[in-house]
Amino acid sequence: MTQYNAPLKDIRFALQDVLGASALFERLPGFESATPDLLDAVLEEAARFAEQVLAPINFSGDQEGCELDKASASVRTPSGFKEAYAQYVEGGWPTLTTPESFGGQGLPETVGAIVKEMIDSANVSWGNFPMLSHGSVEALKAHGEAWQQEAFLKPITEGRWTGTMCLTEPHCGTDLGLLKTRAEPAADGSYRLSGTKIFITAGEHDLTENIVHLVLARLPDAPPGVKGISLFIVPKFKVGKDGQLGERNSLAVGSIEHKMGIKASVTCVMNFDQAEAWLIGAPNKGLMAMFTMMNTARLAVGVQGLGLIERGYQNSRNYALDRLQMRSLSGPKYPDKPADPLIVHPDVRRMLLTQKAFAEGCRVLALYAYMQHDISTHSPDEGERKRGEELVSFLTPIVKGLLTELAQEATYDAVQIFGGHGYIAETGIEQFARDARITTLYEGTTQIQANDLLGRKILQLNGAGLKHFLGEISTFCQEGASNTALGEFIAPLAIVTKEWSELTQEIAKRAQANPEEIGAAAVDYLFYSGYVALAYCWARSVAALADSSATEDFKDAKRHTARFYFTRILPRIHAHGAAIRAGADTLMAMPESQFA
Amino acid sequence: MTQYNAPLKDIRFALQDVLGASALFERLPGFESATPDLLDAVLEEAARFAEQVLAPINFSGDQEGCELDKASASVRTPSGFKEAYAQYVEGGWPTLTTPESFGGQGLPETVGAIVKEMIDSANVSWGNFPMLSHGSVEALKAHGEAWQQEAFLKPITEGRWTGTMCLTEPHCGTDLGLLKTRAEPAADGSYRLSGTKIFITAGEHDLTENIVHLVLARLPDAPPGVKGISLFIVPKFKVGKDGQLGERNSLAVGSIEHKMGIKASVTCVMNFDQAEAWLIGAPNKGLMAMFTMMNTARLAVGVQGLGLIERGYQNSRNYALDRLQMRSLSGPKYPDKPADPLIVHPDVRRMLLTQKAFAEGCRVLALYAYMQHDISTHSPDEGERKRGEELVSFLTPIVKGLLTELAQEATYDAVQIFGGHGYIAETGIEQFARDARITTLYEGTTQIQANDLLGRKILQLNGAGLKHFLGEISTFCQEGASNTALGEFIAPLAIVTKEWSELTQEIAKRAQANPEEIGAAAVDYLFYSGYVALAYCWARSVAALADSSATEDFKDAKRHTARFYFTRILPRIHAHGAAIRAGADTLMAMPESQFA
Repeated sequence: MTQYNAPLKDIRFALQDVLGASALFERLPGFESATPDLLDAVLEEAARFAEQVLAPINFSGDQEGCELDKASASVRTPSGFKEAYAQYVEGGWPTLTTPESFGGQGLPETVGAIVKEMIDSANVSWGNFPMLSHGSVEALKAHGEAWQQEAFLKPITEGRWTGTMCLTEPHCGTDLGLLKTRAEPAADGSYRLSGTKIFITAGEHDLTENIVHLVLARLPDAPPGVKGISLFIVPKFKVGKDGQLGERNSLAVGSIEHKMGIKASVTCVMNFDQAEAWLIGAPNKGLMAMFTMMNTARLAVGVQGLGLIERGYQNSRNYALDRLQMRSLSGPKYPDKPADPLIVHPDVRRMLLTQKAFAEGCRVLALYAYMQHDISTHSPDEGERKRGEELVSFLTPIVKGLLTELAQEATYDAVQIFGGHGYIAETGIEQFARDARITTLYEGTTQIQANDLLGRKILQLNGAGLKHFLGEISTFCQEGASNTALGEFIAPLAIVTKEWSELTQEIAKRAQANPEEIGAAAVDYLFYSGYVALAYCWARSVAALADSSATEDFKDAKRHTARFYFTRILPRIHAHGAAIRAGADTLMAMPESQFA
Repeated sequence: MTQYNAPLKDIRFALQDVLGASALFERLPGFESATPDLLDAVLEEAARFAEQVLAPINFSGDQEGCELDKASASVRTPSGFKEAYAQYVEGGWPTLTTPESFGGQGLPETVGAIVKEMIDSANVSWGNFPMLSHGSVEALKAHGEAWQQEAFLKPITEGRWTGTMCLTEPHCGTDLGLLKTRAEPAADGSYRLSGTKIFITAGEHDLTENIVHLVLARLPDAPPGVKGISLFIVPKFKVGKDGQLGERNSLAVGSIEHKMGIKASVTCVMNFDQAEAWLIGAPNKGLMAMFTMMNTARLAVGVQGLGLIERGYQNSRNYALDRLQMRSLSGPKYPDKPADPLIVHPDVRRMLLTQKAFAEGCRVLALYAYMQHDISTHSPDEGERKRGEELVSFLTPIVKGLLTELAQEATYDAVQIFGGHGYIAETGIEQFARDARITTLYEGTTQIQANDLLGRKILQLNGAGLKHFLGEISTFCQEGASNTALGEFIAPLAIVTKEWSELTQEIAKRAQANPEEIGAAAVDYLFYSGYVALAYCWARSVAALADSSATEDFKDAKRHTARFYFTRILPRIHAHGAAIRAGADTLMAMPESQFA
């Protein structure tokens, strides 16, 4: 059976020593209460919840899955899920980051992200039920009318109800312009919404008394394509303007999907048949409102990747320390035992260090992005807010794309260390690989993230976020230039950052001549950018050791892992750079017919 | 639902145009009958069997899985498996490559490999039932006494019985020196074997009337470790020296594993309790006898990787041609349709070309290795036999390690092209990824292959196989040097081959000072070697176009795919080279305690 121990030491190190979170929160109006002591208390309580409540029902949840009762159109979640959710609500977790003005605790999203990492490490399927609510909260906060906020936002915030995001239809996932669901105005100011949505996470379940669907649909007079999409609230049980729960709305789960993983997270086909719906925001502006939800959700999926990397690392490390098999190449290390533990073998160490370097580096990167988000919403300075917004907007596709892609490699490594035992369900490790597989697909595939990064955030928006980020790295390198302890990291970081910047300009130039160059470079560019960003996170982590109160062992491990990252992982950028420079013709020249 | 169409055009091209198989077989005594016409007939019949009999029960086999009836200790295979096996036997497939002296058709193993690729593309789980028999045949042929060959080999060869390989025990997989199963001599010259073996593929099933287990065990006076292991035949039903089927032997399946994939391939815990067993080969020389089986099995697992790459490619390509989503970056390509097909998007093409380049390149590499095997057994010239043996021995870990690792990436890409639909079981594509995941684990993990390649085949055996291979590439490059059509491939091939050779020498030098350098370099070196080997295969494929009768479209696609491989995949060697040059310290310096 697999274990989970929340990595609180490393979380504190990343949050406080590397990123100086509390120092930041202290000067952001509204976040002053997020002192180190308070954060410690929150993290410890979250760790307890993740370790003791969620982790024990992760394997059983995968084995049991969710079950649809067709007759009643109801979904039974796996054993323990409902009770865990009740504890989650009772513990006040749903209100953690909700502003106090909406009845929440008003903590920074950065803190929510750390709690989320622990939830996702412990039980990523379970984590999907509350995760989608977070998106609804964001959309309602930003675009809901006062009565909608009162009637819907409050119960969601309190966790009494959950939310969903209903975008995808059978014939359109990424391409929302093709969607067909329609909403017609009714006499009372509401709408009647009809259509079929697929891949609806938590579309139906038994955790809460109501479920609030945020649904994209077209008004009768809507222009075609993405400019004719509006956003609606469609509750499972109708809700009066007074907030009173009414009768069942005419919508129901039609079927649930059988998936490769996250089997305890229910994925529904939802049928709406003249369901009572309320418009959120302006007509035909639904896509923008939905993006409010999606950006948060994208960062959150990145955190799912991080959570799974950490979980796989912990378990494969424990196994490598425990399992005796073969002798070290340089002679027995434990001659009194029948064989040496797996961890003496260099390639087992390579796989462990890969996972460790990814987990710890990605943690810094994700938290850094969330801190930019918190700055963008809470800084008293407009310029700083704008800078934060540009940075988080630039980093979102990197965090989503990179962390979920690295989760594939890391969970591969975790399984590989277990050898044949890794392939057996009972061992529990292969579940992490199956669960991780969804993360590069939902909330926009890696391809979508890559095009968002290169096409939109860099080329269309003139690379504002990238410039801030490059500037920050440059300052960091200059400040550390005379620090000999950092030389082995800062020197290569400065070089690859310069190369990254040059490569970006090269692509921009090519793209002017041929827009296909963007798509041809995008995924390799995402990896390239991600690896450089991680190098920066690792260099900062080493730099932070000087003033850290961590143990010498902890510091030593950081240095070794940083060295591993710089010498054995970072050189991958050269392969990605070469692929990009090969240009679009290498992909586009072959006629479609020749693929057959 | 997924499709499968045997890629006969490309198989013929690889076999005849690139590798000149029939020209080789013509001059190898015993293989003269393997004319192009005969091979064509065999391939077409195998394609029909794979497409029409095996492919339709692949998805249902995964859904149903195998079922153990504890009371009778019997295993029910999924619907259609037994009938398909009966057709396989009726069609004479089990005897395809068995020498005529043992009642077989005596065709080259190369031909068997092609048939196997089609079987594995169609239904890799089903393919595991006959696959293990092949190993038993090899071991019995090489080490069995005359009566053993008569009593056991014949029914296995004819497919009336199947074979297994029983190596692994709960506490030892790779490290066979630790095994505990014991065999005591009985009065009649047989032995009584007791112990528990795990991960036994096809250990129990309902396809045949008997199952022959080849089991590693210790004799009472055996020296400790790997030098005290002997190999035994242990049939499910006892077999007299006259070949008569007797009573049930005292062995039984104890349980079956629930696995991530290949769910229709049964994986058994086998309990032996004073079971009647017969020694094969000399006492305490069992490991060597087992290696006879394992080397064939390793190449065969490489072919499983190839089969899955091909299957994933076909299906994701069909989807990419069919599914309409978004518009091309350079403007609509199908303005009359609501959106363009996925294949207009550069990164979808990158993923398709990656799969295509892997499938076609790996096919040439695998068949090349099998041809060396056929040379090693059938050449009339001792020197040529030795050279063939050295080459196949060198290539076996590359074929096993590389093809199975690339199958991970390729099936990842196949799922990714399907987007969210790829994650749904019903679509059928995620099964390929789950099925592929076992291939880097069984028959020796990638780590074992890598150490075998670098530690044994190159450093211990002084790189005989590598030298032949480098020599062959060098000759190829010299011969093509003046061919301008080949310049874009031959020039980089010559460079990377030289770098490969230099890197090998560097590692050899380092390893003299520190044996850990071998393990620290091994997996990256396996990838490095594999990518250079594929570059050679691709360059040869382009060179073969000149005299090929293939269509211009086929030739054009080859050139495009080769160009893609050289410019976008081959540069990965630089990342692997850099990782290797980082040295063992980057992995070994961190104390075990700091991983925690």
